[in-house]
Amino acid sequence: MPCDDRHRNAPLGCRGEPVLAAVRAATLRELAECGYAALTIDNVARRAGVHKTTVYRRWHDREQLLLDALSDHVATEVPVPDTGDVERDLRELARGLVRWIASPAGGGVLATMLSDAGRVPAIAEARRRFYRQRFEQAAPIVRRAIERRELPAGTDPAELLKALMAPIYLRLLVTGEPLDEEAADRAAEVALAAARAGALSNPPRT
Amino acid sequence: MPCDDRHRNAPLGCRGEPVLAAVRAATLRELAECGYAALTIDNVARRAGVHKTTVYRRWHDREQLLLDALSDHVATEVPVPDTGDVERDLRELARGLVRWIASPAGGGVLATMLSDAGRVPAIAEARRRFYRQRFEQAAPIVRRAIERRELPAGTDPAELLKALMAPIYLRLLVTGEPLDEEAADRAAEVALAAARAGALSNPPRT
Repeated sequence: MPCDDRHRNAPLGCRGEPVLAAVRAATLRELAECGYAALTIDNVARRAGVHKTTVYRRWHDREQLLLDALSDHVATEVPVPDTGDVERDLRELARGLVRWIASPAGGGVLATMLSDAGRVPAIAEARRRFYRQRFEQAAPIVRRAIERRELPAGTDPAELLKALMAPIYLRLLVTGEPLDEEAADRAAEVALAAARAGALSNPPRT
Repeated sequence: MPCDDRHRNAPLGCRGEPVLAAVRAATLRELAECGYAALTIDNVARRAGVHKTTVYRRWHDREQLLLDALSDHVATEVPVPDTGDVERDLRELARGLVRWIASPAGGGVLATMLSDAGRVPAIAEARRRFYRQRFEQAAPIVRRAIERRELPAGTDPAELLKALMAPIYLRLLVTGEPLDEEAADRAAEVALAAARAGALSNPPRT
């Protein structure tokens, strides 16, 4: 029996996925609109229109919920490309990140995660775990490139992905320069050049 | 007649420089300890032990004062090296930046400049102008490297310096990874590899 919107009155076991999606979406809206301090399981449940026990059944606390909601959201909004060419893959990934940052959902979530609230230890820890998961999600780009001999064998996927992100976040958080496709393309070119030169291998050569 | 501390009662024209240095130092301490909202010419003058007309004579408003104090401070604390070798220059510059970020003065100033207060338009504008000045200060590293044929002729100094800074700020503001000499050295290596490959030329090749 398929689980979709026609089964709104079916038992939770069946309509589980749409409910989980609604809870995750409510979590990010709550975070972006009201901030981390107001992010409670109660508020999220109310916003999602579910009972709070439904939320607690799946997530132990708000940090786990936040991490899961964030990972799921970014995996959907900034998909990991597989074009068969590492340069195109990196460019698409960088462009996707730039578009996501410019979107209301992405901008709102990032503003909270990276703002003063980001210095709260729990949110800093959620952020670290989020990026670790994200690097794992996107690592296949690098592994496939190594298999196709487009990159040196020792290239570290996480280091390459950080090199790709770094100039984009620098514009967003430090220099205030525009975040556009050109910025994304240059980020991809720089990261790729460094990787090809062996500067993103693990362990570092220096 | 030399201007030094023995001339405390000399006219301002003579003991000008120590007074200006005291005002600049008071500006950064005020910013780091009390935040941008509390940064007024009155508070700075009181902290520096000078009359506020002394401050107004030199700086029109607090934004100008902040920009000047910041530029002067960073030029002193993170000197632009000239070792005769671009790799050593970039490494020293990156290590200097990492040390400065870890210092109470640097950390305090950066926290305010890049925190939520950084979204105040005046402070965002001061920050943009500060980085523009800083790129000009450090540009000779790149120009000398081009003259020595260590880097391609079209290498853009500001782009290279941003590539050097980006992974350091990513650790500080996003991933929360440690900021140490290894991080600085890797940042230098990545920026250099990208520049050598022509990925940091201006206009961008992409």
